[in-house]
Amino acid sequence: MNVRDVALVGGTTTKFGVRPSTWAELAQEVGARLFREMPELRAEDVDSLFLGAAEPERFAFQSHVAPLAAEQMGLRPHRIIQRTELACASGQSAIRSAYAAIAAGLSDVAVAVGVEKMNLPSMAEANTSMACVMDRAWDGPHGATAPPFFAMVAQRHQLEYGTTEDQFAAVSEKNHRFANSNPEAQFHEKTFSREKLLRLPIVAPPLRLGDCSSMTDGAAAVVLVAADRAKKYTDTPAWIRGTGQYSDFHNLAHAGSLTEWTGLKHAAREAFGRAGVGPEAIDFAEVHDCFTVSEIIEYEMFGWCPPGQGGAFVADGQADIGGKVVVNPRGGLLGCGHPLGATGIAQAVEVYRQFARKAPPARTVPDPEWALVHNLSGSANVHSVMIYQGGSAA
Amino acid sequence: MNVRDVALVGGTTTKFGVRPSTWAELAQEVGARLFREMPELRAEDVDSLFLGAAEPERFAFQSHVAPLAAEQMGLRPHRIIQRTELACASGQSAIRSAYAAIAAGLSDVAVAVGVEKMNLPSMAEANTSMACVMDRAWDGPHGATAPPFFAMVAQRHQLEYGTTEDQFAAVSEKNHRFANSNPEAQFHEKTFSREKLLRLPIVAPPLRLGDCSSMTDGAAAVVLVAADRAKKYTDTPAWIRGTGQYSDFHNLAHAGSLTEWTGLKHAAREAFGRAGVGPEAIDFAEVHDCFTVSEIIEYEMFGWCPPGQGGAFVADGQADIGGKVVVNPRGGLLGCGHPLGATGIAQAVEVYRQFARKAPPARTVPDPEWALVHNLSGSANVHSVMIYQGGSAA
Repeated sequence: MNVRDVALVGGTTTKFGVRPSTWAELAQEVGARLFREMPELRAEDVDSLFLGAAEPERFAFQSHVAPLAAEQMGLRPHRIIQRTELACASGQSAIRSAYAAIAAGLSDVAVAVGVEKMNLPSMAEANTSMACVMDRAWDGPHGATAPPFFAMVAQRHQLEYGTTEDQFAAVSEKNHRFANSNPEAQFHEKTFSREKLLRLPIVAPPLRLGDCSSMTDGAAAVVLVAADRAKKYTDTPAWIRGTGQYSDFHNLAHAGSLTEWTGLKHAAREAFGRAGVGPEAIDFAEVHDCFTVSEIIEYEMFGWCPPGQGGAFVADGQADIGGKVVVNPRGGLLGCGHPLGATGIAQAVEVYRQFARKAPPARTVPDPEWALVHNLSGSANVHSVMIYQGGSAA
Repeated sequence: MNVRDVALVGGTTTKFGVRPSTWAELAQEVGARLFREMPELRAEDVDSLFLGAAEPERFAFQSHVAPLAAEQMGLRPHRIIQRTELACASGQSAIRSAYAAIAAGLSDVAVAVGVEKMNLPSMAEANTSMACVMDRAWDGPHGATAPPFFAMVAQRHQLEYGTTEDQFAAVSEKNHRFANSNPEAQFHEKTFSREKLLRLPIVAPPLRLGDCSSMTDGAAAVVLVAADRAKKYTDTPAWIRGTGQYSDFHNLAHAGSLTEWTGLKHAAREAFGRAGVGPEAIDFAEVHDCFTVSEIIEYEMFGWCPPGQGGAFVADGQADIGGKVVVNPRGGLLGCGHPLGATGIAQAVEVYRQFARKAPPARTVPDPEWALVHNLSGSANVHSVMIYQGGSAA
């Protein structure tokens, strides 16, 4: 048997935000929404479930979450069921697993779902849980959680390249503007101007509140199928053409340059190589803007601009509609919020919606053919990349 | 490109037991041991890492564990890195993921590793963490943790079929006897007679201490490669021929019969169908004896004996060397202990060792060709099956 092509044929997300729902209720909600929006999808056709979830054991005191999600969604996977965890990239990890299973002939119709419940009655407990994404034994005692780590990255980028706070704010302004046309986004600030962003409180210098993604509750789901089934579900599938990952280090003492993310370069090279295209082919990208500086470095590492020029690139509108590559038309992690395991799935939903011409006009990418999704996890020590091509069903 | 055959070409485990080591130290130890025992394995050849771990977030207050394991093992996965969680079946879930990735051409040489650290200074905390494998919202308040649930299963099996405590003890005696010839097993009781087992304290009636697997620290790792690379590593690979999983329910209110595990039947049918053999072909099996009654029901569900006859089957020596099928020659979860994510990997290590004629005489299966590995997770609501064939490298 040949390795099979895999199509993403639909998907949806819940409203992201501070939700009163439990973990299980978010899974139930995204399942109900998926079947409502895809009437041609029958529960009995779904043979596999791949769940991306980062820390339900801590945020929801619940493990063995894949069968819980299946039950809440009304699914009974009869071929494969599993949950994948890769911290902030857990969602893409689930999609990659579904892709491999379908390509290898182990599954025909798979649902990849991401669920995360992060807002707790005690946000001190929630924030402590977030900290265990870093190396607890070695980096934890030095206070290394995400905001101070990425603040170091931002300071270093400023030192090496002269990147300004106004350029950081340009990322946030763009992504919040896109989020305004995404009803499921956590934030809908009508006047998220750069001026306003630069007056927000500092979280870890130079990063302000608007430079940081948030603690978010939410769920998202996509449907992936073998090529010969795609037509049953959509005329506008997103074909998975390339995937790549790279793991550099864990303990921060082993990190190399803070501003040159070699792991991302490796992951991108693998994904582009498999897809047979280069960065210049990408029409739009959903990249991991957990902090504004992340997106700026990602422009550079993907090769959309030279090293150090990411700040100027975004300030010049090159990451916007009409620019070189539209980055984060969904609204990004900054605008949509970042429910860890759901983020990578929601990014893929946006890829589907853009190819299917289902995004609202204010965030519609003109005539897209190639899209890229990127997640980083932890202290940017793991990078995950997938490349999609739009096109008709086979 | 064709879907590729996948070979398991080696593996090892740490000593299982109550270990002073941390989670990270267990990963380090199994990595060092793997490279020592497989001198032909070079770190730079390993392109992917699949980690099975159930609850490091609770047991070790550490998430994002895949890159931590990679670093501790001296690996730098440049194609795929992920952790899979499926509670007690997390290890097999990692192997299945590695299999799919290699079969689909996404990886050439993958390490699947399982790590679990369960013994904590506060065992009350550890036991509470174990409870979150069940549905916390609905089953937790009723006291449904593993021992009382499987005690209900045992009581029901006794009621329906007249299964005796002596028959339960026959499972435990056999598996502890096998464990005596496994230096990595947690338990080495030289006189684990049925009489002694029947005098042990009751945990949840009718299950006594010897009927229950334990809280165990340990790690295990296997190496999986594409067919054309197998010869580089071994002359006696174990070929993965079939896989199957099935998810029935999560909330116990949705469970069907306690003694007929239809999910296991479905998973077995899928795996046997893919392998092109039936249960009668299996020479030895590593099955999930989390409790003695589990193994008895598994004989019945796999079709090695009629429903209700599992107790007589084991008491008659049919699950022993010289019987119909050798079950748990490694020593099982009862004899080896059950470090959740490591169990499924350690079972696969035993498959490799048996095919490679590397098991000590007291547990050597005569002339094996086909082997089966089974894990259940949670309240037997998910079943996972893999079928291996021994044979020479291509």
